[in-house]
Order: sequence, then C-alpha cells, then structure tokens
Amino acid sequence: MQSFNPPVRTLMGPGPSDVHPRVLQAMARPTIGHLDPAFISMMDETKEALQYAYQTKNELTMPVSAPGSAGMETCFANLVEPGDKVIVCINGVFGNRMKENVTRLGGEAVIVSDSWGDAVSADKLEQALKENPDTKIVAFVHAETSTGAQSDAKKLCAIAHQYDCITIVDAVTSLAGTELRVDEWEIDAIYSGTQKCLSAPPGISPVSFSERAINKLTNRKSPVPSWFLDLNLVMGYWGKGAKRAYHHTAPVNTLYGLHESLVMLTDEGLENAWTRHEENHQMLKTGLESLGIGFLVKEQDRLPQLNSVLIPDGVDEAAVRSTLLNDYNLEIGAGLGDLAGKVWRIGLMGYSARRENVLLCVSALKEIL
Amino acid sequence: MQSFNPPVRTLMGPGPSDVHPRVLQAMARPTIGHLDPAFISMMDETKEALQYAYQTKNELTMPVSAPGSAGMETCFANLVEPGDKVIVCINGVFGNRMKENVTRLGGEAVIVSDSWGDAVSADKLEQALKENPDTKIVAFVHAETSTGAQSDAKKLCAIAHQYDCITIVDAVTSLAGTELRVDEWEIDAIYSGTQKCLSAPPGISPVSFSERAINKLTNRKSPVPSWFLDLNLVMGYWGKGAKRAYHHTAPVNTLYGLHESLVMLTDEGLENAWTRHEENHQMLKTGLESLGIGFLVKEQDRLPQLNSVLIPDGVDEAAVRSTLLNDYNLEIGAGLGDLAGKVWRIGLMGYSARRENVLLCVSALKEIL
Repeated sequence: MQSFNPPVRTLMGPGPSDVHPRVLQAMARPTIGHLDPAFISMMDETKEALQYAYQTKNELTMPVSAPGSAGMETCFANLVEPGDKVIVCINGVFGNRMKENVTRLGGEAVIVSDSWGDAVSADKLEQALKENPDTKIVAFVHAETSTGAQSDAKKLCAIAHQYDCITIVDAVTSLAGTELRVDEWEIDAIYSGTQKCLSAPPGISPVSFSERAINKLTNRKSPVPSWFLDLNLVMGYWGKGAKRAYHHTAPVNTLYGLHESLVMLTDEGLENAWTRHEENHQMLKTGLESLGIGFLVKEQDRLPQLNSVLIPDGVDEAAVRSTLLNDYNLEIGAGLGDLAGKVWRIGLMGYSARRENVLLCVSALKEIL
Repeated sequence: MQSFNPPVRTLMGPGPSDVHPRVLQAMARPTIGHLDPAFISMMDETKEALQYAYQTKNELTMPVSAPGSAGMETCFANLVEPGDKVIVCINGVFGNRMKENVTRLGGEAVIVSDSWGDAVSADKLEQALKENPDTKIVAFVHAETSTGAQSDAKKLCAIAHQYDCITIVDAVTSLAGTELRVDEWEIDAIYSGTQKCLSAPPGISPVSFSERAINKLTNRKSPVPSWFLDLNLVMGYWGKGAKRAYHHTAPVNTLYGLHESLVMLTDEGLENAWTRHEENHQMLKTGLESLGIGFLVKEQDRLPQLNSVLIPDGVDEAAVRSTLLNDYNLEIGAGLGDLAGKVWRIGLMGYSARRENVLLCVSALKEIL
C-alpha cells in the first residue's frame, strides 16, 4: 500500500469545486483538541462568518459535522414530527431526497411537481397550501444542483408564511454563489455544503435556524429520532457563551479549511463573490454558444454557478467527459436521473469561478467536438 | 477576520490524538471529484486496509462520512427496528449513548449495568439474556473511552450468539490500539473513529458489518429512518465492483488523511502497533506510580491507550490541566459524568503513543504537583 497522490484536476462539475491552496494549507495545520480554548474561539469566528454568508442574525447558525445530505437531514429530523404534513416542491434530484427524508421520519409528504429544469412554481405551491390547510412545513430547493434552476426563495417563503408554515430551504449550491438573504427572505431552516461556492473541502454542512424554527423544535412532542443530529444536544457544544459540553468530536481540520475559506469570502465581500460567479457564467455562456451549445434552463431561472448544457446531437457524452478528464485533467458533471445522457453540468463554483477555468473548458470542448 | 493558526499541542487526552505530519500533509493534497476513477481506486485500498485493521473479511467494511457518534448511529439505525429488544451493557458514557440510540429508534432497551471503571460482566449479560429470551441485539463498548476499561468482546459475543442475538460493538478507542479481531471474535456490527489510535483527523467513522448483520438489515420490515446513514444506499457508492452511484459527497481530503494513516499502520504492522501502545502504557504507569498516582481501573481490565488516573488528594484538577495546556502545550482529558473531578484521562493513542510523550507528561506533572 502506497501513499495516495491524487492527480491535479480542474473541478468544473457539480462539486466539489477547486479548493484554493490557502484552504488546503489550512487543512494541514496541527490538529488540536475539540475543547481547546483556541479551537473554541475559532468556532465562534466561524459561526459569525457563516451568519455573514447567510445574511442572518440567527443565533443557531453553525456547521453540522457531516456532508450536505446530513445538513438536509438535520433540518428535517429536527423539525418534522410523525404525522406532520410537509409540502415538498420537487423540480430535481434534491427535492426527491427531501421527500425521502419526510416519509422516513413519519411525516406526510404532499408533492408540488415542476419539470426538471424549471423553477418551483409559486402558483402551484399556493394552490397546494389552499388544498392542505393543515400543512406545517414547506420545503424546496433554492438552487437545484441536478438541473441548474434557481427558484424564487423570497416569494416561496412569503407564501408559506401566509399559510402559517415554516420553510426548509436547500442552499447547497447557492450559498456564496448567488443572492441569498436568510433574514430578509424569512427562511426558517436552511442548509448548505462547503464543497460548492465556499470552495472548502467536502464533509461539513452549514445550517441556520430562525426563531420560528427553534420554536417548532422546542415544542416537539417526540424526541428527535437522531441522537447525532439532535440540535438540542449539538447546541450544547456549538452554543454561544454557554460552557461547551462534549457532544461529538468535531472534524477539527475540516473546520480549519472552512474557516480559511470564510476568511477569503469576507475579504472578497459577499456581493463581489455573487458578481464574480455571474460574470464567469456570462463568459462561459458566450463561449458555449459560439460552439452551438445551448442551456437546459430558461435564461431568467439559470444559476450562474451550475450550468446544465444540452449535449449536441450525435455526441458520445461519456467519451467527451473521459477525454476532458484524461487529456485535460478537467472534470465536468454528467446529467442525473432523467437528464442522464441529455446534459452536461458545468460548475463555476467558488474558486472554480475563474476566467482561466472558463477559457480552458470552452477551448477543450472546442478541440474535442 | 484572520487566518487561524492553531497552537502546536501534544495531544494526550481522550482524542483527538496527535496526527502524524505525513497524515496532515495528505489532507492538503488537491481535492478531486468523489466519482473520479483515481478517487475510487483510493476508496478500494481504504476498504481493504480497514479490513486488515479490523481483522475481518467482511465485504461491508467502510468509513462512514461523519464522526464516531454517527458510526454508532449507523449501526443502530440500520439494525434496530421499532419494537426490537436490545440489551445494552452500560459501564460508562458511551454505553449510555447506545441506550439513547435504541430508544430514539423505537427499540426497547434492557440495561446491564456495571460500575464505571469495571469491565462489562459476562455473567450479568447471560442472566439478562435468560430473562429476556426475545432479545434481538446485544450492544456493548469494547474500550470505554470515559473510563479506560476494556471488556472481553470475544466472550460477550459468544454468549450473545448462544442466545441468537447479533452484536453491536463500540471500538472507537480500541481499533489499532489493542487486540481486536472482528472475524475470530464474531462481532456482527462494529464502529470506530479515526481520531484515536489511527491518528487521523476526526470526522469519519470506519464500520464493518458481518453477514449476520446484513441479513438483519435486508430483512427489515420498515425503512431505515435515516436517509443519510442507510447502508442500503451508502453501499451503492462504497460497494465493490458495482458501478459507483452518487449518494452523498464523500469527505475527500479527510479520506486522504485516513488513507495515509492506514499506509502507516500496514507499514508498522497491526500487532506491532498493539505492542507499542502496551509498552508506552507500562512506561506511563511506572512514571505515574513514582508520583504516587494510581489507576481507576483494575490492572487486568486496563486499556493501554486510555489511562484513567486518580487525582491526588487536595489537587485542583482543572488548574493542573490548564497549566499543562498553557505552559507545556500538553492536553490531557478531564473525567466525564460521575468521574468529573475524580480522574484525569491520559491518552496514548496512535502517534501519541511515543516515549517522548510519556516522558513529557510524567515530567510536567512532576513539576506541577
């Protein structure tokens, strides 16, 4: 058995994205104890920077010690009680995963369906709420990583609140890549990943809970079914001011990486990061259109950071991805589910959203096609 | 907000342990995609090396993408169905946590209690099995991190099997630190952490399931309540030979760290690692006894890698730990639960199990006391 020396890739798939050398270096700093006072002050800074990234004052804003899928489960396991009716808006893979969470937790899922590639329809949501006045929670994906469609989170949350529902929002691909304002849009529970537009290594999931969500949590009739994800316990470790109580061992070095990526985000400025993603998206669009490659998603609903582009007729899509990987060390993503074989997913996330990456991707595709 | 530069500590608490510079360097290698062919061949090597560390041929042997507590929950959430009777042997904090898992999953927990610091009593287990012939699962902690006591896993598993139960075993602190033979001892489901005797950074949890455990899993009447931890799904990504299906994004860089620590373990040899832990424990024991410091646990039940030592009368234990941390950059652990204020926990785990660490610890304590 030999040490593993990975190839150096350019990561333009649906995530992980390129990790900046500063973040990689941070990962290699000496491990310290998860109750060390020095570590705890880093935790406080991380929470504060995540509040900035989410544009929220929510006290319960912290990274869950597991990937984005576990961040999703943290929101559902803490907020959905057996018998709760939950409207799940599905317009791609990750909406389906939300539904799986609801039913496994004993909730009743009511589905609002939109085509893959479309945004979630506000009208359909309102209709479903009228037909299901006993709904407790509305869940939807802000930025569908499987399609590249962006939904109007502000509008969807406003409708949900008119019907006295709290909202659970998937922001795995949107956080730090496109406009997202948790407090202004009144999002109640939100989760994200570190390996997309934050450009930190995968493995942790920032979440944030509003007062409304915390009320639902603290008034539960049954215990949270997961010990590991129970925020009542996790907050004993991550809570501000309180004496830190041991819950689990935090992923110390991965948190070093997240902290460094948040230093870089605050240095750049959140709005500037959004603009950078948009500018690189426009450049990619121009380049791809010059090759005759179009987009799956209507222009007004497109995510800048996740581009689902239509595979030209007669092209062996898997062979193209292999050539990109083997000859150019460039990773782009395949289509998922119904979109397999129909689209490529080209990510421009975080440190991957750079002019040089866009040029490489367009030039390489030009050579191959 | 500034980059975080942690102090350089010597970690002799209950974990995380010192991480070898080779492992830290591996963490900083360039991130690649979690479906990259190069990554997948690293996953295969990692699984194989974990089989070696666990001394098992179990096909279902892999790292869960979250800390040891989530490894625990993986075992319980996949194996315990609502209504299942589970005997949980409790002789410390982590037995209690097992019980929490069982009850939250709708199982019925029957407790076999032993004093903190004692091994689990085989006689009491057998008695409980006689009184509860409908028991499906027996769960116990092999190496109690909260007390430093080691239980006879081989014997406890043999008894459980006489009564047609499968076994769930916590090996968070034992894996690679003390004798552990999953196949020979017929352990059915086992979980561990990376931040103890493997000396990799915290954040992932190696688990292994026997055929008997997989039978229980595949014959479930209800779905696994956790989508993230459902091994039916996880194995689509980690399974051998099969086309790797996306489940969640693996913690790529943390897995680099684990892989490197497993390279080091195979180079050293598992039995040699066990011997190293024992030798350093003996040296620590001699040193502490020369200071008049004794052990909580009876000699025959002591774990070499986790030493619960009795705080001398009249000593302000928290002040001593602070002085060790601030003046010597040396971390040792406090007592947990009933043992708070009564013991220190001195870890000799993985790369921390070195002669120089033992000397530093004994000399520093001598200066302070």
